[in-house]
Amino acid sequence: MSILNDLSTPAFLVDRTVLNRNCARMRERALASGVVFRPHVKTHKSVEIGRIQHDGAAGPITVSTLAEAEAFAADGFRDITYAVPLAPSRDKLDRVRALAARVERVSVLIDSERALQALEQYAASNGMVFDVFLKVDCGYHRAGVDPSNPDSVHLAMGMARSEGVRFQGLLTHAGHSYHARDIEEVRRVAAEESGSLSRFRALLATEGLGEARRSIGSTPTLSVTDRFSDCDEVRPGNYVFYDAFQATIGSCAFEDVAVSVLATVVGSYPEREAAIVDAGALALSKDLGPDHVDPKFGYGIVCDLDLRPLPMRIAALSQEHGKLVGEAHLPVGTRVRIVPNHSCLTAAMFDKYAIIDHGRVVDEWRPVRGW
Amino acid sequence: MSILNDLSTPAFLVDRTVLNRNCARMRERALASGVVFRPHVKTHKSVEIGRIQHDGAAGPITVSTLAEAEAFAADGFRDITYAVPLAPSRDKLDRVRALAARVERVSVLIDSERALQALEQYAASNGMVFDVFLKVDCGYHRAGVDPSNPDSVHLAMGMARSEGVRFQGLLTHAGHSYHARDIEEVRRVAAEESGSLSRFRALLATEGLGEARRSIGSTPTLSVTDRFSDCDEVRPGNYVFYDAFQATIGSCAFEDVAVSVLATVVGSYPEREAAIVDAGALALSKDLGPDHVDPKFGYGIVCDLDLRPLPMRIAALSQEHGKLVGEAHLPVGTRVRIVPNHSCLTAAMFDKYAIIDHGRVVDEWRPVRGW
Repeated sequence: MSILNDLSTPAFLVDRTVLNRNCARMRERALASGVVFRPHVKTHKSVEIGRIQHDGAAGPITVSTLAEAEAFAADGFRDITYAVPLAPSRDKLDRVRALAARVERVSVLIDSERALQALEQYAASNGMVFDVFLKVDCGYHRAGVDPSNPDSVHLAMGMARSEGVRFQGLLTHAGHSYHARDIEEVRRVAAEESGSLSRFRALLATEGLGEARRSIGSTPTLSVTDRFSDCDEVRPGNYVFYDAFQATIGSCAFEDVAVSVLATVVGSYPEREAAIVDAGALALSKDLGPDHVDPKFGYGIVCDLDLRPLPMRIAALSQEHGKLVGEAHLPVGTRVRIVPNHSCLTAAMFDKYAIIDHGRVVDEWRPVRGW
Repeated sequence: MSILNDLSTPAFLVDRTVLNRNCARMRERALASGVVFRPHVKTHKSVEIGRIQHDGAAGPITVSTLAEAEAFAADGFRDITYAVPLAPSRDKLDRVRALAARVERVSVLIDSERALQALEQYAASNGMVFDVFLKVDCGYHRAGVDPSNPDSVHLAMGMARSEGVRFQGLLTHAGHSYHARDIEEVRRVAAEESGSLSRFRALLATEGLGEARRSIGSTPTLSVTDRFSDCDEVRPGNYVFYDAFQATIGSCAFEDVAVSVLATVVGSYPEREAAIVDAGALALSKDLGPDHVDPKFGYGIVCDLDLRPLPMRIAALSQEHGKLVGEAHLPVGTRVRIVPNHSCLTAAMFDKYAIIDHGRVVDEWRPVRGW
């Protein structure tokens, strides 16, 4: 009987073999491409996995919260980029300053004159200098300056000349790769991602800014190429785990997904082809996954304990109930593994990960929480 | 300058005045109706709010996880119903046994012969008796037995005669009230909820089962009536906070919503009528809210610091970014309050709640996490 029948459910399982393979593959590709490898840790928020991403070292990382930055700094990571535009609030600036005093480099991100002014004012009052990237919009239209707008050149030049900030370069994220339906579409977005930064850099060079560093990164765009070009740094994150979404749009094979949520059937209703598991919205997250490819995708892929997909869809989630619909008859007490739609959001629901290897639980890791 | 400009964002704010009012109103209605008041604590998972629900006492409660049951038992709550069908796993049964030894009563829920057998077997091996409700489906079609199926009568009779369980009665949840579009629809569901239990009870009475207790509860169905009838116990939960969903379907007024997420604008793009705030999917949850009423509802209602709605929609959420779209110009650094779609899921994202009263932070409460 598998150890998976003994674990308390719901549980977040990480397959160590698959995790190690995903981590090694991306790292080797970055090294072979001669670019700086600065993986994102937001997907797992775990210092153990941060080190696996760097083959044991506490190498350069990207974070999505200051809480991640603080936890990884405490664990020995010395070069950290906080890749969400910094809120120019007193408490956040204070925390960045404290971090900067403690590690080699903490880079932050801005995309407005207003944020630049806030940093300069704080830097002047506190006798410090911030390391700052300019966030550039490469077509995702979430955050970032428009690289074709003259104001963006003006902002970059202002950062380069500022006494309060050290200009670290240009940073972009091709989040619209997540809207792709297949590898070809992802490849077009990848070209747009690196192309827009390179063109903007050329524009800055004509203004005398020299060779601004280009930092790019999204797991889809970095998964579909063997060699990273037209960039100086890559920041993939989700690739450590992958998920049902990434497998569907072609970033990875289904076998590359390292994580699943172990759940127990608590209600069985074969007469209406339905069952209830003890993994609801607070275990899986309500991410709809690749619903642009299949509007009826459901909230994850239901599998047996050997990760063979079952003919069951997760049709609805309430707080602690997952409603499965389909023809498999799953008696009360049956255990299933659910491959999550979006591993970043699902992992964050758990206070601990069960690390498994060849059917045994070999470790338990705890992610960072909060902001 | 409001304290809301100093708090670190994102933050989960609970307005104490509104919370107290919501709690008092529901409790008084239950008392006036002469039914047992067993509020659900899953929405807030906080022992402080559990006591406010009972006007300071550690009264009967309903929980959605054993972790909640254990934390509330440790705080002095003595009568607890775990209202998710129990997974018949060894670890869960052990935990229920430990709880039962510690408090006056822990009731669990089943809806199958298989679960009954598992309980009986465990009870016999461990010299104990479980307090058990039969979960009945009143039309929601999530969990529960079909009250019109003779097998359901057979299961209830088996529970009543069992030596391993004490039959506690019939329990249902009209979750389909959440699919209603207005108060009239909610009222029809409410009639179905109590009606189906009463009819099933009558059926059991003809088999000699006497007066089985009827436990009902959903915030919509319990919010639209002044008097609870055709039931013996009510289990509302969401009413302590309410949310954008409940206000839209008519369970409450917008002014009755006690919670909001404080966020800071970190990117401002008036040229494309957009802004980014530092509250993403990990702060708000990806619950779509009342999208059956308005498919373009967005991930919450964006308000100013005085909770006046702004002409901005939350069009998309990524992990730490909320993308606002609309005509309000919100410069970087602006603070907003977001009324969440589903307060249960949003509250669970935070490790602490900032309790505010008349513009001051008066307390900080910590919810239970995990399972």
